[in-house]
Amino acid sequence: MIIDLLTMNRKELIAQIKAKKSLLCVGLDTDINKIPTHLLECADPIFEFNKEIIDATQAHTVAYKPNTAFYESRGLAGWQSLERTIDYINSEYPEIFTIADAKRGDIGNTSKMYAEAFLNQLNFDSVTVAPYMGEDSVKPFLDIENKWTILLGLTSNKGAFDFQFIKDENGKMLHESVLETASTWGSDENLMFVTGATKADQLKNIRKYAPTHFLLVPGVGAQGGSLEEVIKNGKIEDFGLLISSSRGIIYADQSENFAKVAGEKAKELQLQMAELMF
Amino acid sequence: MIIDLLTMNRKELIAQIKAKKSLLCVGLDTDINKIPTHLLECADPIFEFNKEIIDATQAHTVAYKPNTAFYESRGLAGWQSLERTIDYINSEYPEIFTIADAKRGDIGNTSKMYAEAFLNQLNFDSVTVAPYMGEDSVKPFLDIENKWTILLGLTSNKGAFDFQFIKDENGKMLHESVLETASTWGSDENLMFVTGATKADQLKNIRKYAPTHFLLVPGVGAQGGSLEEVIKNGKIEDFGLLISSSRGIIYADQSENFAKVAGEKAKELQLQMAELMF
Repeated sequence: MIIDLLTMNRKELIAQIKAKKSLLCVGLDTDINKIPTHLLECADPIFEFNKEIIDATQAHTVAYKPNTAFYESRGLAGWQSLERTIDYINSEYPEIFTIADAKRGDIGNTSKMYAEAFLNQLNFDSVTVAPYMGEDSVKPFLDIENKWTILLGLTSNKGAFDFQFIKDENGKMLHESVLETASTWGSDENLMFVTGATKADQLKNIRKYAPTHFLLVPGVGAQGGSLEEVIKNGKIEDFGLLISSSRGIIYADQSENFAKVAGEKAKELQLQMAELMF
Repeated sequence: MIIDLLTMNRKELIAQIKAKKSLLCVGLDTDINKIPTHLLECADPIFEFNKEIIDATQAHTVAYKPNTAFYESRGLAGWQSLERTIDYINSEYPEIFTIADAKRGDIGNTSKMYAEAFLNQLNFDSVTVAPYMGEDSVKPFLDIENKWTILLGLTSNKGAFDFQFIKDENGKMLHESVLETASTWGSDENLMFVTGATKADQLKNIRKYAPTHFLLVPGVGAQGGSLEEVIKNGKIEDFGLLISSSRGIIYADQSENFAKVAGEKAKELQLQMAELMF
């Protein structure tokens, strides 16, 4: 199936958020060992699982975020499942924002290849990128027109404390430097930041460095972040938030009913969001 | 083809370095737009190119380093070329060290999937990993027994100056903190560091933080590092260096003679290394 290169600008993303009253991004961290066993008889169980999850959650969801590690761990078959998944979203629900959660980043000519892989070849709207190698490792992603780069700012895991909170000579923390410096590489029309929800009290501080950028906030649910704190501290006038949940939705049920239950969980979260958003 | 899980410990790697009098790692950054045009008629031009390059350079080479971006940018076909390439090295030249230059890193359960993809599934000896997300993002790679993690320390690109040289309150630079902290996560038997050759004067300083670890030094050749400086400042008693060259070897010639010329370039570099090593 050939699909034209899809794009989604900030205005379109915000329109979708308003229409669905949702900030929900569903993480497709699809693990063959965790999906209902009846799917294992399908030709491509991972895609079949994703497809049913997507159909059941799409009404409440503004973004899908397949995590590339889960697909690469299955080699060729996994890459094919990833292709089928993004093609399915792009053809059935082109209004939904898509994120390749890949956390790539390398020297310029190599980052260019990753940008090609995820933003052109696979036709995701956006890709997550790691900041350690600096501007020329990030620019090739930003250079793809009408696509988005989502740079790691402050992550939600324990290891975030190893380096991201190191204070420089002026007392500025590394993740603050990343937000401040990277903000000059792109605009709030093509650059977002990943900021971990389990540190929702930090979101207010992050907004000092990224007052108008969209923030992708993982870790609500399984990773334990509080939805109320995230929206209270992270929301700006036109929302500027995508809040990701994966395991709490996609593995909420292990039976043949899994998609229906996932849909209910997504709706539950969307309703909570709607109350806090307006 | 099924191959048992390959391993290579430090002693075996050093034995190979001594036997070949070489520190050379050939980077397989194989770009369909840069390979000789006669190969485009093959069923898998990328693999065919790699195979000929490997056969022609293996006598002078202790490590091969396919860069995953170049394969992923070609989707399914690219992943297949990568699989064929690593399978070919593992079956024909199992004594040669292999590096998946992937620069991955994510929360624990995700890094575990990447470790599975590159170290088990594809059966590379090692994988390059990015440090920004800290210990729990790196540990799952180190946890795979008899395999190696190669962590980014100081990179060779211009963007390295954006964050890697930021000094903390005590004057310690970020890349120094990464080397120091990460050294406690693994040992010099399962952890190496990437340290950019274009800053060879920095290698002496890096050895203060990683006195016994192997260093993977990219950037000799196309990226402009000096071989003499790298070996003078980076070598330890049992060498502890892998020096990578890619474009200068694999694209040295564009004719049907490309593999022969690549072999000559590799030998040239190996002979220069041998003079500086002993």
